[in-house]
Amino acid sequence: MSEDLNVDARVDLNADLGESFGRWQLGDDAAMLELITSANVAAGFHAGDPRTLRTTCAQAVQHGVIIGAQVGYRDLAGFGRRFIDVDPADLTADILYQVGALDALATSVGGRVRYLKPHGALYNAIVDHRGQAQAVVDALLALPHPLPLLGLPGSLVLELAADHGIRTVTEYFIDRNYTDDGRLVDRRRPDALITDPELAAERAVAAARERRAESFCTHGDSPGAVRMARTVRDALTAAGVAVEPFITP
Amino acid sequence: MSEDLNVDARVDLNADLGESFGRWQLGDDAAMLELITSANVAAGFHAGDPRTLRTTCAQAVQHGVIIGAQVGYRDLAGFGRRFIDVDPADLTADILYQVGALDALATSVGGRVRYLKPHGALYNAIVDHRGQAQAVVDALLALPHPLPLLGLPGSLVLELAADHGIRTVTEYFIDRNYTDDGRLVDRRRPDALITDPELAAERAVAAARERRAESFCTHGDSPGAVRMARTVRDALTAAGVAVEPFITP
Amino acid sequence: MSEDLNVDARVDLNADLGESFGRWQLGDDAAMLELITSANVAAGFHAGDPRTLRTTCAQAVQHGVIIGAQVGYRDLAGFGRRFIDVDPADLTADILYQVGALDALATSVGGRVRYLKPHGALYNAIVDHRGQAQAVVDALLALPHPLPLLGLPGSLVLELAADHGIRTVTEYFIDRNYTDDGRLVDRRRPDALITDPELAAERAVAAARERRAESFCTHGDSPGAVRMARTVRDALTAAGVAVEPFITP
Amino acid sequence: MSEDLNVDARVDLNADLGESFGRWQLGDDAAMLELITSANVAAGFHAGDPRTLRTTCAQAVQHGVIIGAQVGYRDLAGFGRRFIDVDPADLTADILYQVGALDALATSVGGRVRYLKPHGALYNAIVDHRGQAQAVVDALLALPHPLPLLGLPGSLVLELAADHGIRTVTEYFIDRNYTDDGRLVDRRRPDALITDPELAAERAVAAARERRAESFCTHGDSPGAVRMARTVRDALTAAGVAVEPFITP
Repeated sequence: MSEDLNVDARVDLNADLGESFGRWQLGDDAAMLELITSANVAAGFHAGDPRTLRTTCAQAVQHGVIIGAQVGYRDLAGFGRRFIDVDPADLTADILYQVGALDALATSVGGRVRYLKPHGALYNAIVDHRGQAQAVVDALLALPHPLPLLGLPGSLVLELAADHGIRTVTEYFIDRNYTDDGRLVDRRRPDALITDPELAAERAVAAARERRAESFCTHGDSPGAVRMARTVRDALTAAGVAVEPFITP
Repeated sequence: MSEDLNVDARVDLNADLGESFGRWQLGDDAAMLELITSANVAAGFHAGDPRTLRTTCAQAVQHGVIIGAQVGYRDLAGFGRRFIDVDPADLTADILYQVGALDALATSVGGRVRYLKPHGALYNAIVDHRGQAQAVVDALLALPHPLPLLGLPGSLVLELAADHGIRTVTEYFIDRNYTDDGRLVDRRRPDALITDPELAAERAVAAARERRAESFCTHGDSPGAVRMARTVRDALTAAGVAVEPFITP
Repeated sequence: MSEDLNVDARVDLNADLGESFGRWQLGDDAAMLELITSANVAAGFHAGDPRTLRTTCAQAVQHGVIIGAQVGYRDLAGFGRRFIDVDPADLTADILYQVGALDALATSVGGRVRYLKPHGALYNAIVDHRGQAQAVVDALLALPHPLPLLGLPGSLVLELAADHGIRTVTEYFIDRNYTDDGRLVDRRRPDALITDPELAAERAVAAARERRAESFCTHGDSPGAVRMARTVRDALTAAGVAVEPFITP
Repeated sequence: MSEDLNVDARVDLNADLGESFGRWQLGDDAAMLELITSANVAAGFHAGDPRTLRTTCAQAVQHGVIIGAQVGYRDLAGFGRRFIDVDPADLTADILYQVGALDALATSVGGRVRYLKPHGALYNAIVDHRGQAQAVVDALLALPHPLPLLGLPGSLVLELAADHGIRTVTEYFIDRNYTDDGRLVDRRRPDALITDPELAAERAVAAARERRAESFCTHGDSPGAVRMARTVRDALTAAGVAVEPFITP
């Protein structure tokens, strides 16, 4: 029975890349790009100096991995993980700025920015903060062609985006615990992260079978990130789930 | 005789705009846009928060003023006026980042970035700093279509750009004094700036007659900036010099 | 009757200074220092480059004006006016950093930092945000000698500070409207600011008679700031209210 | 004979610590503090968020390691390793700001800033850049008590400092190659760094015997930093060289 359900099961595997900054290295982008199908590349406000971003984009192009813009609050010191009460008109401009910047770097190495994924505290804020959620949608609508938007299932931002005809892509975090109402457990809590690759892999396979989301996120910045991504990908493949980008390359 | 020479004299009038940052206002962009034909809009590294830049671009579009990207060193505290020994590969990426960011903002309000003007200390550095001059050219070559480049006549960067088939546009500063070898007098010297509008206007008319440059720069950030720009423009018009952008709008 | 009440009425007059940043000038510190008795000097996180701060401190010393540290969120783009959900342990360190930095600059010109005033969104947050309010108190307790703390009457931070034996100084904003529950009207609302000097002066005299607070704040960064401060100071003096610092110089 | 020379040979061992920034970790401060006698703690301009700095200072205090302020250019993206043509008056204020900030954090955990070490490109610039060298000296003279200054033997900054009665401490980099004229080989060259711990240890012992400098620097931010520091310290001790701070704790 479950085999039948899996016949055409497929899922995108995304991770946050390009999160180094100058002297500070974070994550192993080259290794992750062997395993994922979509790269949420930082865009300079929470992480990512331009040269790093350009290199990461070039590597993504080489690996045939789709590039998305991971836009965040202007907060290097907080890595974009602290809510900032940004005025919506400022936030819209901040997002356009980041998307354009990353797209120029991606274009310079033969790629393009193909989707948008808000980062960190912004991601969580727009689950229900109407002003900021609308600001994200406004940014997408101000682009020549609105990019698809990754977000939490049931979030306000996905609802507003869909209302405007923007393609929305639901996302499931295989290595993050969720609260009862479907949000991510706050990173400040000890149970926020799942670090056991096998557990994450089991969750991924179950979520793929349940078709919980179109794209699965695995984190790229923890010490065991590469091993976890490999374990997850192997488990998905073994379970007959096709790991493919949600956008045609 | 000189009348004949002036028959088809024309010149572009440019100024630096979008140089506010958050709470800090600088210059009167709206007033300057009534007077100039090309706007060197800051791109966030030396000045210009994204919302300001978007607003300035929208105003430029309304006034039919050409938008250029004024890219600089990453140095808000120094307003891009301090030389930084940036590695060329970093500089190329920094410039692509800024151009793309500004272009996304410009595009969102119906405009486009149509040329590049390096700012401040970078402008001066690439008069003879080969590594950084080449880095600027590399950035232009990495764009889908290289943008025209404004620069100092005789500068290395214009020479390198021309070698690569990039359109170069020579520039004359009507309100800056020059050294004997054709460079700008250092801003730290008391005689760096010309503040008398009449004197600047005389210089502008003379320079137009001598065809010293395709574009004249008048500063937008000093208290008397608007008055000077108006005096200069009026004097040029009275002398029969057409004030027109160097690019077709 | 009211005359009797005024016999020993006295109040401190404070303003935010040192809020320029590099090329961007804000406020007329020299003129304000003629009128106020306490200067809330920015400390670099929301505004204030070190050279500006040093100059402002030197001017304060010359005028016999008490220097306080105006500490804020790390947010130049937002001028410290946007709430940031900073972790309390980070906030405590951020405040110590700013206080120490400003004190070194003040000391170098013959002054000292004598009190603490949180700035902008932080000021408002600690009216009731327990974690951040405690973080501010923790910073004060971690200094060799806790500085007096300026704050909103009835705020949680003043309550927590008093619990730890820290001297608290209540503050009244003569040019800001209050909500019914005693908070500042949000700056994003049109009625947040009072711009009429006469109205502000009336409010100041009334507040002094009612002994609403030990220190009155008048803003230093608006175009009419100097005129308002002068009008207020003159009105207070005319009403027999002594304008004196809350700390012995 | 050489034994006699070594009888009272002693040297300070310093390293750069506190160079993490927010999410980005760099170096293993706790491990290094077991091995060194003086910690050049970053001060926020090139690296070091306040919470990290406070923690590093607390650890230094616990280990009885002397704390110095490692001050640099305001350049997080460049990690302070790019020359910036900062105006001397700005630089003096920037240094006072950093020293005061770090001292407040150190004081809050029972320590004090006891010396100054300029970082990266600033360190190299003041070998011969008179304006910036004087700016560093001016900062020291503007402190209540001038701190001892670490620097390159023969550098202009040490000469100027000594002229003003400031204690100067000569430094030798055990893991950096020198040019023929006694400067550090540029980091952009492949032979800039020595990565072999045994070679570094040999150099250290030889330099101690030759009394080349009062303090030896071993880098804290490379992958093998801890192993190198241990090898060097063990070799020095085995050679009868006392590893002691240059200041009484």
